[in-house]
Amino acid sequence: MLNYNISLDLIFHALADPARRTIVERLSQGPASVSELARPLAMSLPAVVQHLQVLEASGLVQSEKVGRVRTCRIEPVVLKTAEQWITERRASWEHHFDLLGDYLAEHPEEPDERSS
Amino acid sequence: MLNYNISLDLIFHALADPARRTIVERLSQGPASVSELARPLAMSLPAVVQHLQVLEASGLVQSEKVGRVRTCRIEPVVLKTAEQWITERRASWEHHFDLLGDYLAEHPEEPDERSS
Repeated sequence: MLNYNISLDLIFHALADPARRTIVERLSQGPASVSELARPLAMSLPAVVQHLQVLEASGLVQSEKVGRVRTCRIEPVVLKTAEQWITERRASWEHHFDLLGDYLAEHPEEPDERSS
Repeated sequence: MLNYNISLDLIFHALADPARRTIVERLSQGPASVSELARPLAMSLPAVVQHLQVLEASGLVQSEKVGRVRTCRIEPVVLKTAEQWITERRASWEHHFDLLGDYLAEHPEEPDERSS
């Protein structure tokens, strides 16, 4: 649970930056080299590398250097971890909301406190 | 697009902290007062209030003060915004992966560079 929590800290932190989300968006369309990832970003290559390090620390991105080219790819399982956490919260909220709806449907006669 | 990006920055930043995720988890089960939210958290009430301010700034949580009690509730549309961004990236990755699978299935005769 602690590790899971630390993972979520790092994943959501990694996604909280527009440049890093641009990188994830690009990688969701397939692997890319660091210079390909840098192209649409208005920043220096070292700045892009720093963002990649944050993404790699979270597990969202993995990279491999072959010769002079470092190729990055997305780790879908890690993306799924974050998605699942949010989906579960939303499902829990909807379940609560449905229960409230059922309760209100079963108790239509009760006075509405707001109008009293 | 800019506003959407700022929103995602704030939402993912808000979710990158375990105490704030505990608050969102609790609120996904229904509205709660600040003191109810503070109960499971090992921190001072002012610290909890600070976390709530980050959650409110992101739009994930809304609160209303009636008399002396401030009641907080989740904003599911905002949770959905973050979920959708991740889901779209994952879907994009899966689509790419399927295309790659199709390509490999259609070109079974080509030599594998890794083994050459």
